[in-house]
Amino acid sequence: MRHYKKRSLPLSKVRRFIEPGPIVLVSSAHKGERDIMTMGWHMMMGFDPSTIGCFIWDENHSFSLIRRSKECVINVPTFDLVKMVIDVGNTHGGRIDKFDTFGLTAAKASKVGAPLIAECYANFECKLVDTSLINRYSLFVFEVVAAHVATSPRYPTTVHYRGDGVFMVSGRNLSYRRRFKRVNL
Amino acid sequence: MRHYKKRSLPLSKVRRFIEPGPIVLVSSAHKGERDIMTMGWHMMMGFDPSTIGCFIWDENHSFSLIRRSKECVINVPTFDLVKMVIDVGNTHGGRIDKFDTFGLTAAKASKVGAPLIAECYANFECKLVDTSLINRYSLFVFEVVAAHVATSPRYPTTVHYRGDGVFMVSGRNLSYRRRFKRVNL
Repeated sequence: MRHYKKRSLPLSKVRRFIEPGPIVLVSSAHKGERDIMTMGWHMMMGFDPSTIGCFIWDENHSFSLIRRSKECVINVPTFDLVKMVIDVGNTHGGRIDKFDTFGLTAAKASKVGAPLIAECYANFECKLVDTSLINRYSLFVFEVVAAHVATSPRYPTTVHYRGDGVFMVSGRNLSYRRRFKRVNL
Repeated sequence: MRHYKKRSLPLSKVRRFIEPGPIVLVSSAHKGERDIMTMGWHMMMGFDPSTIGCFIWDENHSFSLIRRSKECVINVPTFDLVKMVIDVGNTHGGRIDKFDTFGLTAAKASKVGAPLIAECYANFECKLVDTSLINRYSLFVFEVVAAHVATSPRYPTTVHYRGDGVFMVSGRNLSYRRRFKRVNL
């Protein structure tokens, strides 16, 4: 699997990689345990600071690691990793170490204890900033505190879940910049 | 612009059209006023009942129509409508009627007062079920109460916003159904 050369991304631009709605991998660690989960239910909630809402089911092993450590990394995988992404979702982290099982590289983050997945196109280090919606909605609100994005290609070929085992693979990227009111860009 | 032939969709399947992360158009009405807004920040929050979280900025004219009527319709447009989608986002509903301005057809909904946009591939009639996160996060939590989806094609060609005026157009749809654990489908 490929390791990307990466650069730091200004935090206000994280939305460019989350707003299109890709399936992401969430990595976490707490007291010697670590885990990875596949996640499709997330949304931008602000870009200054960059805030992301994530639905994390309480039966997922990552749920307790993230709730206790108050940190995670949101990693954006590309189409070439789709089978691993499915297999990560098929397995339960309580019994196995998913980095070892799937041959993934845990790289050191700069501001959180959770590891980055080196094979992913982008890695967003996150701090849990609001726990009040976890019980009611399984909703974790994270602030992105560091962002690392591949220098090439310009746009990742991401996978987006249509349900029933079907993924949509991201297609063409077209600029309509001149049609937009500047304030809406 | 095309009008689709549509069928009712079981509400638990609405996630198939929201989870991939498309740009949607939100239509609303209150006391003789109606509006349409372009929205990219949304997420599934449950599928039984089908619940969708939406970030609606308080400077948007739709904000007050939706807050007061407690209803809206989430419409899924396709790539052929992308220029209209941008123009809807460029204009402010306080001064114009966007259905008239953009030549869109307001069809009658079955369970809400807000109109469906007939030219969109799918229409999800929504009731506002939680107002407690509007002040803190501009987050509206809706329950889908009726769903109408085009009978053809099977998958819509949707647009996904990458920021800076660039849209990703949805590409191939690939089934990995046999690789999934059944419970995760």
